[in-house]
Amino acid sequence: MPQSSLKSPGHFDTICIVGVGLIGGSLAAAVKQRQLAARIIGVGRNLPRLQSAQQAGLIDDCLVDLSAAAAESDLIVFCTPVDKIVTGVREAAAHCRPGTLMTDGGSTKGAICAAVSGSLPADVHFVGAHPLAGSEKQGFEHANADLYQDRICVVTPHNDSDPTAVSQVSAFWRQVGMTVIEMSPEEHDNILAETSHVPHLVASALAATLRDETRPLTSSGFRDTTRIAAGDEHLWAAIFQGNKTAMLAGLDQFETQLRELRGAIERDDTETLVQSLRAARVKRETLE
Amino acid sequence: MPQSSLKSPGHFDTICIVGVGLIGGSLAAAVKQRQLAARIIGVGRNLPRLQSAQQAGLIDDCLVDLSAAAAESDLIVFCTPVDKIVTGVREAAAHCRPGTLMTDGGSTKGAICAAVSGSLPADVHFVGAHPLAGSEKQGFEHANADLYQDRICVVTPHNDSDPTAVSQVSAFWRQVGMTVIEMSPEEHDNILAETSHVPHLVASALAATLRDETRPLTSSGFRDTTRIAAGDEHLWAAIFQGNKTAMLAGLDQFETQLRELRGAIERDDTETLVQSLRAARVKRETLE
Repeated sequence: MPQSSLKSPGHFDTICIVGVGLIGGSLAAAVKQRQLAARIIGVGRNLPRLQSAQQAGLIDDCLVDLSAAAAESDLIVFCTPVDKIVTGVREAAAHCRPGTLMTDGGSTKGAICAAVSGSLPADVHFVGAHPLAGSEKQGFEHANADLYQDRICVVTPHNDSDPTAVSQVSAFWRQVGMTVIEMSPEEHDNILAETSHVPHLVASALAATLRDETRPLTSSGFRDTTRIAAGDEHLWAAIFQGNKTAMLAGLDQFETQLRELRGAIERDDTETLVQSLRAARVKRETLE
Repeated sequence: MPQSSLKSPGHFDTICIVGVGLIGGSLAAAVKQRQLAARIIGVGRNLPRLQSAQQAGLIDDCLVDLSAAAAESDLIVFCTPVDKIVTGVREAAAHCRPGTLMTDGGSTKGAICAAVSGSLPADVHFVGAHPLAGSEKQGFEHANADLYQDRICVVTPHNDSDPTAVSQVSAFWRQVGMTVIEMSPEEHDNILAETSHVPHLVASALAATLRDETRPLTSSGFRDTTRIAAGDEHLWAAIFQGNKTAMLAGLDQFETQLRELRGAIERDDTETLVQSLRAARVKRETLE
């Protein structure tokens, strides 16, 4: 391995945030608040929107040209939809300086890390991450410097990750207030399929059953259960497709549980029904 | 039909509330606050609990003997689990005075109304109801006089319901602050299967997939989607079993939607996946 040009963690001259929406905008706000960088460049496709984010004080400069921004940055954070991250990383890698660090905020990790692994120039480093923080709101107007505070960030080193790069990326996410857990991209995807991606698909399927005649008779339970179905369909389609294998395995597990409950109702098997509902309640209660 | 002894609506000498938990206790509080009765008798199996509710000022008297309470009441409201209502109505009917009105707060209506229909003495009236209000809290200690305010109450007359009794029961639920919708018990059960019972079973199935390894990586989406799985398993098993046919039909519809979404992921059919997720999002957004 060549001599690393990675800098010591804790402060960056220039951080580039690609995708300045709610997630990227909140990250910019957190970086500003904690003075983690001398300068933040925001990159996106929509210059007027970027200029508004700059006027709002979230970013210091804005560029639609990722290559140009990459050439000036020490750390590049991709906050774009998951299906745009690999292309962005490759483009940035072709133009950035030795020692540049890259990470992302995508909800899937396996496909992204595998596609990037081994394809970057020597001494340019990408370490995947998934900050578990978000909001149903969209747009940098709702940016919140505390969005990441006290939340979990999963950092997913892959086989050829540089250990120094991993520790620097982990340190960055800690500096915006997060608790970092490291695991492999595959383990991340298996777990997130169960805790996030399957629940989202299930919520969407439930919301899809709503009819004009039934709408007046929904109560807070239906609203809670379907809340995440209000998420952006393009973002979520990309997540489901980017985590297809684990998603289908997670759906199998959910369907097994549902079949067990349904079967108990069909058979008038009160004992099994009550036992299964109790087990589910007890599991749910461990969350709060 | 014999000359009705039903009184004019608006005020009752004595209201009996059977089951003084959160639902019954809140009803008692609302009746007190709005001065809808001169006296409230609370009935339950646990005398010390009833005495505590009386000391808390929710009820004026308490009895474990439903027959004795029924003999003194003008209106009896059953706030017990759905599988206890029919037995209670029959016992009360055998001891109450002509003109006594009965209603309930159960989440299923078809089986209850069918079992009661035609089995009561002349001039004793049961009109089923389902106030769509509740809380994840339990016990009269959490009683809230405003629980029913501005919420929907479904009143479900059956074929041989006395029209005066129906209008008086509807008036009562309006007087505690609710908007009353009338429909048949069967229509109620079909709709509530879709808007409440199936979502509850789905939330329980999702909660059941939670594992020790996945718990740290749940986020607010998982919590929202599984919140109602924390409900009491006995209450909900009785609801599912009391609405078995509509419940299974509602599950069929949910499973059809889920299969469509799953199929699009399996086939890498982005267009269908995005369209289906968008349709679900748009339906969800009509709720708020």
